[in-house]
Amino acid sequence: MSASRRSQVPPFEVMDVLARVADLRAEGREVLSLCAGEPGQGAPAAVQEAAARVHQRQDPLGYTPALGTAALRAAVAGHYHRWYGLELDPREVAITTGSSGGFVLAFLAAFDAGDRVALARPGYPAYRNILRSLGCEVVDIDCGPVQRYQPTVPQLEAEHAAAPLAGLVLASPANPTGTMVDRGELTAIAAWCQAHGVRLISDEIYHGVTYPQAGASDPKGVCAREVDPGAVVVSSFSKYWGMTGWRLGWLLLPEDLQAAVDALAGNLALCPPAPAQQAATAAFAPESYARSEEAVREFAATRELLLDRAPELGWGTAAPADGTFYYWADLGDQLERWGDSRRYATALLEATGVALTPGVDFDDQAGHRCVRLSFAAGHDVVAQALERIAAFQS
Amino acid sequence: MSASRRSQVPPFEVMDVLARVADLRAEGREVLSLCAGEPGQGAPAAVQEAAARVHQRQDPLGYTPALGTAALRAAVAGHYHRWYGLELDPREVAITTGSSGGFVLAFLAAFDAGDRVALARPGYPAYRNILRSLGCEVVDIDCGPVQRYQPTVPQLEAEHAAAPLAGLVLASPANPTGTMVDRGELTAIAAWCQAHGVRLISDEIYHGVTYPQAGASDPKGVCAREVDPGAVVVSSFSKYWGMTGWRLGWLLLPEDLQAAVDALAGNLALCPPAPAQQAATAAFAPESYARSEEAVREFAATRELLLDRAPELGWGTAAPADGTFYYWADLGDQLERWGDSRRYATALLEATGVALTPGVDFDDQAGHRCVRLSFAAGHDVVAQALERIAAFQS
Repeated sequence: MSASRRSQVPPFEVMDVLARVADLRAEGREVLSLCAGEPGQGAPAAVQEAAARVHQRQDPLGYTPALGTAALRAAVAGHYHRWYGLELDPREVAITTGSSGGFVLAFLAAFDAGDRVALARPGYPAYRNILRSLGCEVVDIDCGPVQRYQPTVPQLEAEHAAAPLAGLVLASPANPTGTMVDRGELTAIAAWCQAHGVRLISDEIYHGVTYPQAGASDPKGVCAREVDPGAVVVSSFSKYWGMTGWRLGWLLLPEDLQAAVDALAGNLALCPPAPAQQAATAAFAPESYARSEEAVREFAATRELLLDRAPELGWGTAAPADGTFYYWADLGDQLERWGDSRRYATALLEATGVALTPGVDFDDQAGHRCVRLSFAAGHDVVAQALERIAAFQS
Repeated sequence: MSASRRSQVPPFEVMDVLARVADLRAEGREVLSLCAGEPGQGAPAAVQEAAARVHQRQDPLGYTPALGTAALRAAVAGHYHRWYGLELDPREVAITTGSSGGFVLAFLAAFDAGDRVALARPGYPAYRNILRSLGCEVVDIDCGPVQRYQPTVPQLEAEHAAAPLAGLVLASPANPTGTMVDRGELTAIAAWCQAHGVRLISDEIYHGVTYPQAGASDPKGVCAREVDPGAVVVSSFSKYWGMTGWRLGWLLLPEDLQAAVDALAGNLALCPPAPAQQAATAAFAPESYARSEEAVREFAATRELLLDRAPELGWGTAAPADGTFYYWADLGDQLERWGDSRRYATALLEATGVALTPGVDFDDQAGHRCVRLSFAAGHDVVAQALERIAAFQS
């Protein structure tokens, strides 16, 4: 006996970096970790207090409906009215076990084994690894800086002509590049998907973690549901609300997938975590939004610092970081010295205690040239890290 | 566009019953619910207190390693020493998002699409629905009362001769029948699996919710890991510890599946819920075991009541209920009046407010003759329900 063929997904390089960070810290080394995509502020106080109250009560929690409590589904629907002016029926909202649980359900419900699903490269590696483990064919679309690391309609046309696509996973803001697709682009992509029977899966977990110009028309991002009634929207409490680890997210589902996701969720997950569901309605209280906006302003200040100082590092092309807390850059001249981003990152960590993520997780073609730097760690950590990086390179 | 073929899993009938229970209660009707597999006692106090403390702290939770915190993995390993005398390396323990998350990971890691996996019929419907959604071929093994609703080696031989099996899912105690496989039977089945390269997946989520004779040699159940080093054990905090809804379980993994499950878990789930992981180490405190044992004694008293009084109902053959809090019975003469268990259960609920689960979820062949009655609701509720059932039938 042996493990299945479909379980042979590549390991995340970032896990090796995180393990090394933990080892160094255990040895007493000070490490500045710019690796993980974890906002440092934690959950809003109202959510933490609600969760504490859940556990101070004596009554058992029990299972919730497979797609979540009615109260939380309604609260999420209200959020879409607040941010996007959308009127959703709470039945269109499926609460999931993080966006991860949402992706598994959405991919299973929307795609059969053998279906071709397009993804931007670079991109979040779990998309491809989940899809492959579920028997789908991943179609990589090379998305470089000229197109702001996002797929274009002509690229989709070309792939669809080669062999029909069943789906497209689009992330805006994207991990690792932070770039966003604006309303015009999203409308064009959505129209093309609808015209060709291609299911759009829109990863919007970084909505709200955005750095718009004053007066911008879509400051939180454009919700795919605004432009494509057949799209599946994937989102989460992890990033804007700082609730990584709680494992709570949601899907917006078109009518033709609601029964399928309900049946799959009941079998694959039973229900999302009940204590987190009870607490999470407090994420939509005014004070929770205010706390999240404050966190985003802090990310924005750190981003400004980074964009100001990064040119001094002498790296190559970097992504614009319209949103997220990631800075994705080609290492430029440093590649001549270190060969690739993995060796660079290892040497940097050992010499200076600054941990970056080498780009190979996100791009198996060009990622060896790139690094992802997370600025979620905050202004002072990033400032200190930049000084150490400059000294290391000099 | 439409939902995928593989998402066409049958809905759970029990969900319809639960929805009707909720409606009746909303109308002000008193309902005695013997449907759900939810222990009424809730989580141990030490776990609830630990969870409340987690949420009273200010530091963000963040992601844990994909297979869970080192502390919880070690605590689960310690549990196997306490109950079974097993010496496990914590690396053999993978914390999962409930047993549901564990089944998805175990099935993906152990089986490829097209693999044939054997299951007892009657059995827990999610096994088959997950396996089918993942492209596996489900091989039903009809397991009637003569063999205590559990598969036998000759049955496995016959199925394997027809076309090779890749796996067997065995549940002891089983849902819906409560029957257990003793050490001799499990040893024989495990030896056959090992000899034929068939992966044994052992569902042990009801271990400890057992009603052994005084002095019985395996009072909590026999752990498959005791007799088969290649077996995958699936377990959970939900039943013995009363933590349904928390979505926390675990796998015991043989060495050849550890890397695969780690990689899959990182992609499909990121990590199990972090607050629950932090709190759950308290489940292994002496007072938490004591509380769980008290709950099991209450289930035992309710089971005694049920086994004493059930003959008065005039139903047909019932399963022995060695463990779990389920009573699985053929409706006998009542079938002549009502035709099938679905119509019987509907009429009973409407007339008396007693909710049972019709057997069709668990057995698509003979389940229309059977009902599952959960006695987790407690002695007084079950006593009252039995009186109402007797009056309804008379």
